[in-house]
Amino acid sequence: MSVANADISPTMLESSAVRDIPALDIDKCSPADRAQWVTNPPEPPGIWRDLLNSLRDTMFPNPTKLFSPKRNTGIALLGSLLQAFFPILSWGRRYSLSMFKHDIFAGLTLASLCIPQSIGYANLAKLDPQYGLYTSIVPPLVYAVLGTSREIAIGPVAIVSLLLPSLIGKIQDPAADPLAYRNLIFTTTFFAGIFQAAFGFLRLGFLVDFLSHAAIVGFMGGAAIVIGLQQLKGLLGLTHFTNKTDIISVMEAVLGSFRHENTRWNPLNFIIGCSFLSFILITRLLGKKNKKLFWLAVIAPLLSVILSTLLVFLTRADQHGVKIVKRVPAGLNPISACHLQFHSPQISQIATAALIVAVIALTEAIAVGRSFASMKGYTIDGNREMVALGCMNLAGSLTSCYTATGSFSRTAVNFTAGCQTAVSNIVMAVTVMISLEVLTKLLYFTPNAILASIILSALPGLIDFHQAYNVWKIDKLDFFACLGAFLGVLFLSVEFGLLLSIVISFAKIILISIKPGTEILGKLPGTDTFGDIHQYPMALNTPGVLILRVKSSLLCFANANFIKDRILRMISSEEDTSGKRAIQFLVIDLSNLMNIDTSGIGSLEELQNGLGGSGVELAIANPKWEVIHKLRVANFVGKLKGTVFLSVGEAVDACVAAKLGAMV
Amino acid sequence: MSVANADISPTMLESSAVRDIPALDIDKCSPADRAQWVTNPPEPPGIWRDLLNSLRDTMFPNPTKLFSPKRNTGIALLGSLLQAFFPILSWGRRYSLSMFKHDIFAGLTLASLCIPQSIGYANLAKLDPQYGLYTSIVPPLVYAVLGTSREIAIGPVAIVSLLLPSLIGKIQDPAADPLAYRNLIFTTTFFAGIFQAAFGFLRLGFLVDFLSHAAIVGFMGGAAIVIGLQQLKGLLGLTHFTNKTDIISVMEAVLGSFRHENTRWNPLNFIIGCSFLSFILITRLLGKKNKKLFWLAVIAPLLSVILSTLLVFLTRADQHGVKIVKRVPAGLNPISACHLQFHSPQISQIATAALIVAVIALTEAIAVGRSFASMKGYTIDGNREMVALGCMNLAGSLTSCYTATGSFSRTAVNFTAGCQTAVSNIVMAVTVMISLEVLTKLLYFTPNAILASIILSALPGLIDFHQAYNVWKIDKLDFFACLGAFLGVLFLSVEFGLLLSIVISFAKIILISIKPGTEILGKLPGTDTFGDIHQYPMALNTPGVLILRVKSSLLCFANANFIKDRILRMISSEEDTSGKRAIQFLVIDLSNLMNIDTSGIGSLEELQNGLGGSGVELAIANPKWEVIHKLRVANFVGKLKGTVFLSVGEAVDACVAAKLGAMV
Repeated sequence: MSVANADISPTMLESSAVRDIPALDIDKCSPADRAQWVTNPPEPPGIWRDLLNSLRDTMFPNPTKLFSPKRNTGIALLGSLLQAFFPILSWGRRYSLSMFKHDIFAGLTLASLCIPQSIGYANLAKLDPQYGLYTSIVPPLVYAVLGTSREIAIGPVAIVSLLLPSLIGKIQDPAADPLAYRNLIFTTTFFAGIFQAAFGFLRLGFLVDFLSHAAIVGFMGGAAIVIGLQQLKGLLGLTHFTNKTDIISVMEAVLGSFRHENTRWNPLNFIIGCSFLSFILITRLLGKKNKKLFWLAVIAPLLSVILSTLLVFLTRADQHGVKIVKRVPAGLNPISACHLQFHSPQISQIATAALIVAVIALTEAIAVGRSFASMKGYTIDGNREMVALGCMNLAGSLTSCYTATGSFSRTAVNFTAGCQTAVSNIVMAVTVMISLEVLTKLLYFTPNAILASIILSALPGLIDFHQAYNVWKIDKLDFFACLGAFLGVLFLSVEFGLLLSIVISFAKIILISIKPGTEILGKLPGTDTFGDIHQYPMALNTPGVLILRVKSSLLCFANANFIKDRILRMISSEEDTSGKRAIQFLVIDLSNLMNIDTSGIGSLEELQNGLGGSGVELAIANPKWEVIHKLRVANFVGKLKGTVFLSVGEAVDACVAAKLGAMV
Repeated sequence: MSVANADISPTMLESSAVRDIPALDIDKCSPADRAQWVTNPPEPPGIWRDLLNSLRDTMFPNPTKLFSPKRNTGIALLGSLLQAFFPILSWGRRYSLSMFKHDIFAGLTLASLCIPQSIGYANLAKLDPQYGLYTSIVPPLVYAVLGTSREIAIGPVAIVSLLLPSLIGKIQDPAADPLAYRNLIFTTTFFAGIFQAAFGFLRLGFLVDFLSHAAIVGFMGGAAIVIGLQQLKGLLGLTHFTNKTDIISVMEAVLGSFRHENTRWNPLNFIIGCSFLSFILITRLLGKKNKKLFWLAVIAPLLSVILSTLLVFLTRADQHGVKIVKRVPAGLNPISACHLQFHSPQISQIATAALIVAVIALTEAIAVGRSFASMKGYTIDGNREMVALGCMNLAGSLTSCYTATGSFSRTAVNFTAGCQTAVSNIVMAVTVMISLEVLTKLLYFTPNAILASIILSALPGLIDFHQAYNVWKIDKLDFFACLGAFLGVLFLSVEFGLLLSIVISFAKIILISIKPGTEILGKLPGTDTFGDIHQYPMALNTPGVLILRVKSSLLCFANANFIKDRILRMISSEEDTSGKRAIQFLVIDLSNLMNIDTSGIGSLEELQNGLGGSGVELAIANPKWEVIHKLRVANFVGKLKGTVFLSVGEAVDACVAAKLGAMV
């Protein structure tokens, strides 16, 4: 019972590894001694101690690494601190020309995909095209300095571009006052950056895990369809459209546009959009079949933009109803720090929206980062990533960018193009900068329909039927969370779908934890192990002894009464059918119980009283630390009169011995 | 692998009890065979089957009892059905004169306490006094026919009388239109009755368990103080008071009344109230010390009413500012069926209020019934009780009663007075009926202050410091739920306090279920059992093998990543300090896991990959049925290449054997 016992931390491992108990005489330990071990454990750590340990473990998971004795000289310490905060200092020293060759190719590839996508996503976010391009400059540069992922491609992404207008559009209609709306978007981005960086500094990386895998699959699928529906505006060349995102409002708006004369759709837009969409999809198919044509698939969107712009310019189709991008101002990101609206009356709504955007952006970036890191066999630190993403969005909000994050599709392209480090992001940002300086005039005649078709072509990657089927196969309840997110996003709103899936995920946790039930255990032949007789049909039962295990991990207010009644019913129904009582002992295996509350202890007491009435003796086996401690504090152990055992085996042995004793 | 295996119901017990597996040769079972048992279990019941079983188990827990072969003749069946629905037919046949003597004494005692309390509670519910008396007639009579508890005393209670105005007062101000308010109260009672009966018929008795013990203790304590504060109006003789229940509003109203000239309080009311309150409390103290004076304590409230009424009548103190009850109409319950407001525009709000009232009323009645039943050594069926309580409130709502339930304090009096059956409720109801017919004129001069003091005297029983301390001692988190309910009721509102405690209780379940953590296991000397090295300091470790058990019951999206990172950190920190790797095998005991989801399986896969990188072999032991099934479906078992074991012991043995093999 040393002091170290109250301490549960990874460093405990060492103390336990060296602790070979010296002279404990095994022969002296009788089952009664062992029962004493159960009923008199050391005091478990209290709630404050527990909290403190979790906090320490969360904040300083690896205290030894940073301040290891090897490098505790002043300059070396400063160096390692700088490297900890700016990973570029660490990998930059090992950077070579051959790596740069790969990175420059990957960066240019990325830029060719990024420029048309950025304009399209800005369109989706109800901002002018240049803001999408701005967002592809500052955040990637900041991330390259601070981030730890080597493959991630930073910039505007579809989900965030959908989320922003759906959240901020409620506060300020973008059609009514585009400038005010834009300023609110910058403010939201600022707060999102603050939240992200704060999560990282406070080491709240686990918050990102609160969106379950199933929920993300459903959410992404639903969002992809919603984004696709929003593209109908550009694809059909509509002037009047809905601000809502749900499928019903959008379909009404589309059908309405077929009916009304003056807001009628224009087939030219549709023809341009669809033909280039087919082109992009066909090149992608070719690229998948033949790895050498990969570059064609990547260049296809940019090629489409160029070709369609030329087409419109030459035919002057814009005079025949083809909607075009028009003027995109030249020049780099203007400073937007003065546009942030900290004194807005809706500041709390903006902060809430920023929180949602921050979490979604983090979820996407960290999922992307993790999956590509694990492909290359390294791990990324979620908390440090959050700081990097937060800082880049903070910097972005001051330089006319909206919220950026890691893009699924572009990261895959970056990876396939052979990027080595975050330098590919720098190359991409520089390319976009050059385009902004010199090429914006060429975008004047770019048809909106082509932007829609570029976004549409990126969507199939977000809908993951295979994963959804996998979830269905493994866990039906998880699939409900997935379906809830999908349908919620599709038919209600983006936020509601998210909320629904979180609620379903946590409701599932509650359901599983308090699901009332018991299983009958039997001895597995040739071992001292007892298992569920349905899981192990070969398990043998001991005559006269019923061995039950509580199926839930908590015996608490929500299930204790039910379980107690059920056990008493089992015992009494057994009595009814056989006439005489075949069961003399009930052994309850408490090993599943992580915890118990006052209601749970109350039911155990009632169970003991109820069994006493029908002459069945109760024994409990294998309680966890917390549980036996609470049973002792509540004085239930005293009432059990020595029928607490270390294992089911010892409990059964004691029952059989007592039975034989009674016979003799 | 018979068909019965997929079936988990209490009746399974019989089939398992007779199933002694015939010719399984124990000597033939090698550890490898046993590992096969683990990895190839029978298919666990699917989610639909599981749902169906739960449903069947909830709806027909005891199908054999009602239709047992002994009594399947027509008339006998009808008789047993009638007895099942009207328990009075069952116990009525055994009723004797000596029981009636006890019941008549208990019933009269109950009536003497019930009459003043009913008037006071009607006052608290912002209804005229007669409605309290009506509520003490019809519901007890209906309950006596349908209920199964022998001790419970039915009638108006403090909590429900507080809850109704706080919920319905928001829809209709009782001061503005008392008749409309009254009609809404009847409607609420009607719906509450419907809900209660429906819960019983649908066997949703477990819903009552969703208020944890700790939450009830806190809620009752808070409500008692709130009720006491409401009595300041009567005790101080105030005309203007607040409709809110929180302590701040009430104290403001009271302090305001000291300041303003024309709404000033009247000290006479206070003197009358306080002196009789002292009288009641002193008699109760005497009654506790000397059991023979029990009758004095019981009769004291009625005595106070009589004495104070006489006093006011003789001194005409009502002309000097003492507030009196004034006219109470004579005669029995008028029919109120025509006053039910089914077409009210706020019908959904009323139904919500009714649901809250129904659940609270059920919780109180069933808690009271259960605790007194267990004192007398019988059990009551929660579902049948719900039907009885629902029917009585339905009947009550049609006959000018508001929601009734079982009262804590009066049930204790009934029990102490020696009641034998529900006949004491009938005696009480008849006594109240007689009083209503002949004695209402005498209530004219009863001072309101005396009603306040009678309610105040009943409150200390609701505040249970002992239980609150007990909860604190056993479970600190539970105590937060208790405190949340208490402070919520006190400072915000009754509903909010309830909601808060439910949220805290369920948040606690989530917290415990997903609390990420691992514990190191060691072998307990002299056994094959492995236990937490902190719970069992005598546990021995096996060199080269690290045995971990996941501390939570779910490996899911919310904790899987954290646990995986933690384990990898443990392994790598171990590597750092000792220079060379001391751990070659990691055994993970999955026995705690009730379930796993796709994220959990994903982390296990990442863990295996991560360990592979540092040359540590992973083995898993003792997975539950659901878990191993999902691991198989997700094809993780295949990736583990035969390192799944039945128990930690066998896993460790295999590791040691592999190590020795490598040495040789």
